[in-house]
Amino acid sequence: MTITAGLIGLGAMGSGMAQSLRRAGHVPRVFDVRAEAAAQFARGGGTACASPAELGAACDVVVSVVVNAAQTESVLFGEAGCAATLKAGSVFVMCSTLDPGASIALEARLAHQGILYIDAPISGGAAKAASGEMTMMTSGSPAAYAVAGPLLDAMAAKVYRLGDRAGPASKVKIINQLLAGVHIAAAAEAMALGLREGVDPNALYDVITHSAGNSWMFENRMAHVLAGDYTPLSAVDIFVKDLGLVLDMARASKFPLPLSSTAHQMFMQASTAGFGGEDDSAVIKIFPGIEVPGKKS
Amino acid sequence: MTITAGLIGLGAMGSGMAQSLRRAGHVPRVFDVRAEAAAQFARGGGTACASPAELGAACDVVVSVVVNAAQTESVLFGEAGCAATLKAGSVFVMCSTLDPGASIALEARLAHQGILYIDAPISGGAAKAASGEMTMMTSGSPAAYAVAGPLLDAMAAKVYRLGDRAGPASKVKIINQLLAGVHIAAAAEAMALGLREGVDPNALYDVITHSAGNSWMFENRMAHVLAGDYTPLSAVDIFVKDLGLVLDMARASKFPLPLSSTAHQMFMQASTAGFGGEDDSAVIKIFPGIEVPGKKS
Repeated sequence: MTITAGLIGLGAMGSGMAQSLRRAGHVPRVFDVRAEAAAQFARGGGTACASPAELGAACDVVVSVVVNAAQTESVLFGEAGCAATLKAGSVFVMCSTLDPGASIALEARLAHQGILYIDAPISGGAAKAASGEMTMMTSGSPAAYAVAGPLLDAMAAKVYRLGDRAGPASKVKIINQLLAGVHIAAAAEAMALGLREGVDPNALYDVITHSAGNSWMFENRMAHVLAGDYTPLSAVDIFVKDLGLVLDMARASKFPLPLSSTAHQMFMQASTAGFGGEDDSAVIKIFPGIEVPGKKS
Repeated sequence: MTITAGLIGLGAMGSGMAQSLRRAGHVPRVFDVRAEAAAQFARGGGTACASPAELGAACDVVVSVVVNAAQTESVLFGEAGCAATLKAGSVFVMCSTLDPGASIALEARLAHQGILYIDAPISGGAAKAASGEMTMMTSGSPAAYAVAGPLLDAMAAKVYRLGDRAGPASKVKIINQLLAGVHIAAAAEAMALGLREGVDPNALYDVITHSAGNSWMFENRMAHVLAGDYTPLSAVDIFVKDLGLVLDMARASKFPLPLSSTAHQMFMQASTAGFGGEDDSAVIKIFPGIEVPGKKS
């Protein structure tokens, strides 16, 4: 059986994933709200679709790489959404970071139409998406994996299978975002203290990245701070959103998260101070009384 | 010139470091408040001393690996302290985690007697101390390094030289402890949320340790939680102390540390709840409404 693959949302991650599908021999149908993005992708191979509905009608598997719950809802159930055109037995692969309850609800809603579902948040950044080396955290029914499994493997170096229904994958992704967000804010707090104390920031970076205080985020994001480069690979406002999802999930069961709530406040402070669209490492700019390394403006 | 080396404090780190000195061909003089610890070490080579004063009289370099500022003060300036017997030009290597201001003061005080000083906090844990693979964060005068440098290299795989006087090394160590403490508390918070949400903790550990949410501490300490093993390799009360030092340093310049102060409260909550002597990963026990993996008691 030849599987026809579609991908919706040609952003930083989605465009790389569509390239991975093409590299694996697929001729992906693609849709983006920016029609030019889809047209440009198709010039290298693949087919640009005019709507999610048109894409869904042609595909056995639709990979959705949009920003949030509202966009996911629109892609599926909005005007010219693909839920109306996907045939029974096709699979919707949901790669966004959503509240796990929302992902569980989507699976149930699509099941009424016989459409299968994989809860499949992604991680790793744009470069790894383009090279097919990213990570997918997935859960879903065996029937859904039977159809979409090979496509997942074509897009990611590591596909975690975390359960036989929607939910576990989104929960693990949310918990990863908890750690990622707290670690970025902690890295900023540590670097800010070093600057306050007159420590050489490059020496501090060198020591920490070889010590027990290291984190993936310290190593990655503090390189941006040392370079004074706040080009948004992932923006402050993403963590306003994602730590908000973390806190919403915990609040539903009245579970306290002292560090996550503190870090969330730090990202909101950075956003309101005008840095929401900058790289998330710009959370360091909330600290007073220091001069961060910088490109001269 | 043959350097005679001494080491004070045969705890988890100090005993390993003394072994490294012996492996490098030294016959170390050793002292510990537990006389039996020194006697036992000496049976494998080396000389047990009855006091820091006796040790200081025999040594060109004294490596101090005690717990805190009070013990350091006692080793140097207490009854039978070594400051009275160390000769001019000898070197005191201070490996404890202290307030940087205290370390700077010690250097100045010893300089009055012509005793050289290296600010030299250590990192890496007992196993790496024993194998000579630990890290030292050091700063001090060229004259001090000229005498003690080879001994530092014998004890540590990596000796960072961070400045030409006391201060920078202790500051970098304190900032490392900021990150280590926040990361342990964040790891506990993330794992606790996973347990609350019914996520398989072993699967969560597997995903996080291969994702951008990882930290050195998550990977190391959550293995203890999954095993239900709170044997104190480093205890909760160490981070009550060390995050306290972080906050003291910042308070001196009125610098805000939102995450460090939150994490400090979490470790204090754990300590007061009765877990101060357990492994620092026991901070997870402050979270209500979850059942942590455990050995049956």
